[in-house]
Amino acid sequence: MSLATARRATAYRSRLDSEPLVVPRREPVVWGDLDGPIAPDDLVDYDRRGFLTVDQLVDTGEVAVLQDEAFRLAADPELATTELVVREPDSDQVRSVFDIHRVSDVFADLVADERLAGRARQILGSEVYVHQSRVNFKPGYRGREFYWHSDFETWHGEDGMPAMRAVSISVALTENTEVNGSVMIIPGSHRVFVGCVGATPERHYRQSLRSQQVGVPDDDNLARLVGEHGICQITGGVGSALVFDSNCMHGSNSNITPFARSNLFIVYNSVDNPLGTPFAGTPPRPEFVAHRTVHPVGRR
Amino acid sequence: MSLATARRATAYRSRLDSEPLVVPRREPVVWGDLDGPIAPDDLVDYDRRGFLTVDQLVDTGEVAVLQDEAFRLAADPELATTELVVREPDSDQVRSVFDIHRVSDVFADLVADERLAGRARQILGSEVYVHQSRVNFKPGYRGREFYWHSDFETWHGEDGMPAMRAVSISVALTENTEVNGSVMIIPGSHRVFVGCVGATPERHYRQSLRSQQVGVPDDDNLARLVGEHGICQITGGVGSALVFDSNCMHGSNSNITPFARSNLFIVYNSVDNPLGTPFAGTPPRPEFVAHRTVHPVGRR
Repeated sequence: MSLATARRATAYRSRLDSEPLVVPRREPVVWGDLDGPIAPDDLVDYDRRGFLTVDQLVDTGEVAVLQDEAFRLAADPELATTELVVREPDSDQVRSVFDIHRVSDVFADLVADERLAGRARQILGSEVYVHQSRVNFKPGYRGREFYWHSDFETWHGEDGMPAMRAVSISVALTENTEVNGSVMIIPGSHRVFVGCVGATPERHYRQSLRSQQVGVPDDDNLARLVGEHGICQITGGVGSALVFDSNCMHGSNSNITPFARSNLFIVYNSVDNPLGTPFAGTPPRPEFVAHRTVHPVGRR
Repeated sequence: MSLATARRATAYRSRLDSEPLVVPRREPVVWGDLDGPIAPDDLVDYDRRGFLTVDQLVDTGEVAVLQDEAFRLAADPELATTELVVREPDSDQVRSVFDIHRVSDVFADLVADERLAGRARQILGSEVYVHQSRVNFKPGYRGREFYWHSDFETWHGEDGMPAMRAVSISVALTENTEVNGSVMIIPGSHRVFVGCVGATPERHYRQSLRSQQVGVPDDDNLARLVGEHGICQITGGVGSALVFDSNCMHGSNSNITPFARSNLFIVYNSVDNPLGTPFAGTPPRPEFVAHRTVHPVGRR
C-alpha cells in the first residue's frame, strides 16, 4: 500500500529517476525594501551570497537562558517519547529537538523577537510565520555530519512549499569554531535549483533527520557549484547568527572534538507562500517539521 | 580458539577492563643532538608540542610525481586483491594504501630522502627504519573521520614497540584546508600515555584501519587533555609536512567537501627500538602495517 499522491508539475523537479536537472532560480532573493534592521550593504551581500552573518544577534546573558532551555528540552522525559527528539544515527545522543517554539515559552518569545522576525520580514517582504524550529546539538566526540543539501529542495518536494520565499536564522548556543563541525555554505548556490536523483522513501523524514541520503546533490553538480563559488565556513561566538536563504547549498562535517556545536534554527516562511500538496507526490510531513497553519509572528 | 598470547608487563597499560590509567611519559621526546636539518628553535617546539610543520618539504613538481604514483597504486588491480588497500567503512572508495615504500620505487626513494630520514634521525638520535608507510586518501564527499588516537598506544599494544622512540612524517599530496578534514593534534598530549578501555578483538587491524573503536581515549580524559592544551588544526599547501611524535593524540573530522585530503604517512622507528612481543597479549599484526625486520634507511 503506497501513501503516495500524484507528483505535481513544477519547474523545480527533484527526486528524479533520471539525470539531475539544474535550473535557474525564478524568484527574487530579497523581496522586501530597506525598511528593517538589516543595513543596505548587508542586504546586497545577502542577495549575492545567499546569507549574512550577525556577530552578536543575542547577547551572552540571553544565550545562557536559551542554552538552559535547550538542555532542559533535550532531557525532558515526556518529549523523549515523541518524534520531536531526534537522536544521532549511531548513538543515543540527542541530535535535534524540533518544534521548540511550540513546547517552550522561552523559544516562543524568541521567534517573535524583532531581531529575528524583523530581519525575516525585511528579506521576505511580508508578514512571516514559523515553518519549522529546532535546536541542533551536534554533540562532541561523535557528532555526525549533515551532508550537503538545499532546505528548499526538501520543503518543496516533501512539504509543498511553493516558492523560494523562506529564510532560516541560526543562532549559536556554543562557539562555532573551525574544528567542531561548523556550517559550510556554498555562496551563490541559492541562485540555482539542483534537482536530486532518487525516489523519496515513505516517512522519509524519520531517516533524513538523522542522516540524509535522498534529496542530496550528485557529486558532479556539487563539484561544479564549489568550483564556481567556493565554500564559506561560518564560525562565530555564542550569540552570533547566520541568516540564510532557503535554497542555499549547505552542510557540515562531523565533530570529534569534545565541544558540542549547538545552534538554534528557526525557519520563517512568508505568509504569502503557504504549504500545499507536496511536489514529490508523497504525503505531507508532520506538523512538527513543517507547519501547515499560518500564524504570523511578532508585530510590525 | 584464541590466538592471544600472554599480556606483557609495561608501564603503558592499555586495552583495560577497568578505569583508564593516565601515566607520564618516561622517554625523552628529542633523542638526538642539533646535528640535522631541523633548526634548534623548531626542535624546542617539537619537544614542547610534540610536532612541527614544514611549509614546503617537497616541491610542487615532485608532489605531482608522488600524486600520480599514489593514484596508480590505488587503482592497481593486483594490489586491490591484497590487504594493502583499505576502503572506507561505508563505501568502496580507497581510504588508504599501505606499505607503499615496498611496492613502489618512487616511495622507496622518498622514505630514504634526507629531507625526511634526516629529520627522523635527528629527532630519534639513531639510525632509523620504516615501521609503516601509507597514503591516506580521505576522499571528498563521503570521507570519514579518523577518531582521536595515539599511534604509540596501538604500536605498543598490538605491535610490541617498546618505547616512544618513533616519529611520523605526513606529506600533503593535496591542500589540507580548514574544511576538508585536516589533521587535528592536541599539542602537549605526547607527554602522557592515556590507557584505553576495552579488549582487543582478534585481527583488530582489519576493522581499526577502516574505523577505530578500540584503542581510543575515553571522553573524560580526552576532554581533560583538550581543556589543558587545546586543539591545533594542521592546514598546509601541497608539499607541506607534519612531523609528529608517536604518542601525540590526533584525529580528523569527516570530509564532505569535493576536495580529497590526501597525505603520505611514513613512520620512522629507531633501530634501537625494534618490535618485540605485543604488550596487549595479541598476536603481532602483519608486516604491511608493522615491519619486524630492521632495515636502516638512507645514509648519514
